[in-house]
Amino acid sequence: MILSDPSRRALFAGAGALATASTLGVAGPALARSVPPTQNPGFYRYKVGDITVTAINDGFARRPLEGFVRNAELADVQKAMEAAFLPKDALSITFTTLALQIGDRLVLIDTGNGDSGAPTSGSWMANFKAAGFDPKSVSTVIFSHFHGDHINGFRLKDGTAVFPNAEVLVPAAEWGFWTDEARAGAAPEAMKGAFAAVRRVFGPVSKDVKPFEPGKEVVPGVTAIAAPGHTPGHTVFAISSSNGRLMVMSDTTNHPALFVRNPDWSAIFDMDGPAAAATRRKLLDMAAADRMQVAFYHAPFPATGHIARIGNGFELVPLQWSSAI
Amino acid sequence: MILSDPSRRALFAGAGALATASTLGVAGPALARSVPPTQNPGFYRYKVGDITVTAINDGFARRPLEGFVRNAELADVQKAMEAAFLPKDALSITFTTLALQIGDRLVLIDTGNGDSGAPTSGSWMANFKAAGFDPKSVSTVIFSHFHGDHINGFRLKDGTAVFPNAEVLVPAAEWGFWTDEARAGAAPEAMKGAFAAVRRVFGPVSKDVKPFEPGKEVVPGVTAIAAPGHTPGHTVFAISSSNGRLMVMSDTTNHPALFVRNPDWSAIFDMDGPAAAATRRKLLDMAAADRMQVAFYHAPFPATGHIARIGNGFELVPLQWSSAI
Repeated sequence: MILSDPSRRALFAGAGALATASTLGVAGPALARSVPPTQNPGFYRYKVGDITVTAINDGFARRPLEGFVRNAELADVQKAMEAAFLPKDALSITFTTLALQIGDRLVLIDTGNGDSGAPTSGSWMANFKAAGFDPKSVSTVIFSHFHGDHINGFRLKDGTAVFPNAEVLVPAAEWGFWTDEARAGAAPEAMKGAFAAVRRVFGPVSKDVKPFEPGKEVVPGVTAIAAPGHTPGHTVFAISSSNGRLMVMSDTTNHPALFVRNPDWSAIFDMDGPAAAATRRKLLDMAAADRMQVAFYHAPFPATGHIARIGNGFELVPLQWSSAI
Repeated sequence: MILSDPSRRALFAGAGALATASTLGVAGPALARSVPPTQNPGFYRYKVGDITVTAINDGFARRPLEGFVRNAELADVQKAMEAAFLPKDALSITFTTLALQIGDRLVLIDTGNGDSGAPTSGSWMANFKAAGFDPKSVSTVIFSHFHGDHINGFRLKDGTAVFPNAEVLVPAAEWGFWTDEARAGAAPEAMKGAFAAVRRVFGPVSKDVKPFEPGKEVVPGVTAIAAPGHTPGHTVFAISSSNGRLMVMSDTTNHPALFVRNPDWSAIFDMDGPAAAATRRKLLDMAAADRMQVAFYHAPFPATGHIARIGNGFELVPLQWSSAI
């Protein structure tokens, strides 16, 4: 008897009854078994050569699927969700930043939502501390671009600097775009919040911020690569140490089930859709050709794996979780 | 400049130099940044209706790829590994058990390697405790089958009972096979260790063990389903609570990248290869048709997801990790 006697439907149906004649074992003393159903802290470590990378999760934000992809029919987007066994009404967009231990430096790439995001986000600091880190020990923060879910964790709403001892490295093109007072003043209503967030986060340290150009090794082993489209100065990072390589893809794609699989689709967060799609194809193509390990800010935690070609698109093959680092 | 100037090769090559003129930011005080590179404890929670499931990892064992698949050429097995971005010389076989909170019961399905496995295994108890559980609070242990990596965690080498208050439920066919003294006495040399392990683990409690027949709801919401081939009494479990469903696939497959993808391949651990393959095809077919959530003992942690059809085989699509339960 495997699937026929009783039928698989009957098996599941029968299992719904909480007390049946066939239920075994009500023995054993009544012991305290209640464990609060809290999730494991969201951090995961892996090595890139001599660099220890810690992926740190900042929760998620749910977003209705309708209207999320600018250039695809909702039915096609739902089909992609269904193929990935994801819900068809809303997408849980997750956030995963990276902490890099490089020699005696502790370097962050992006900082999460801080206390400015959705109620289901904002777990970054608890996860960072669970991983054994102290925000005062952060020596460098590198930003990939200036959207709120990447920068708001740098400064609390009340103005507190979260990483008081960190130097701040930003893409020069991103810095130029978002700190242009004339552009900020003329921004359409929908963009005013984004400009205000940049001013709130970076205003108090604007004289100390260090803009970098693409092609530069911004800290030892971390080279910036321009990846424009998502934002004007959107940047990805090639990490290299000993024989280890990792391409930090930042927001080259939003959820891989939609945009790695369909690289020509544009999420509404892409400021220049066609430029973002061109960048996306180039970077995914390169990752697939070189079989290099990649990390994505919006891939399911721990947000790292490899890129395989499939059909006219690609697929993210998640890294196998390992208890060894 | 994205991929051409400098070339991607040059980017990675250049990044290898630890101090270059373009390196920014050596500022900041020398702070204590060393965090021991220990991995996050391997537990992960999810809900099946009102039942809280906690996947608990017990590390891994590396096994040379050569000779592992009985009925496939090494080159084809290596091709499957390469497609999954896994190493081509050896397979890391991982172990993930389940702890179920059902009402006031704490129920385990299988117990890991205990102190009898590879040095890279045996992390089960640390992960179980990190998840907030106490071995004395376990009310029921259900075994899927009697291979050492599933039963050895029930009793330490020195004879200590690890779950002193638990009732023990075992598949009747498995119990009958492994406790048959005549069969144990006549076992070929290669099988003697397996028989000895069963005697070591279950001997002291053999009078209290409760054998169950397939089709029975062994504890509320958990129904046993015969899945013979891997071992004579190998069992999978249909978990059902409210609208939640989970099929616990036990050792229906070893690593999904090999045996979900190629269900007709037989690992050397399958005692009856053709029977195991027939069971595997039936269960994977059912999981794909019903789009049900599945859990595998030897899938990469957290070892749960859904089954999609692909070509003449299947694929395990991992569940999206969630900070919410």
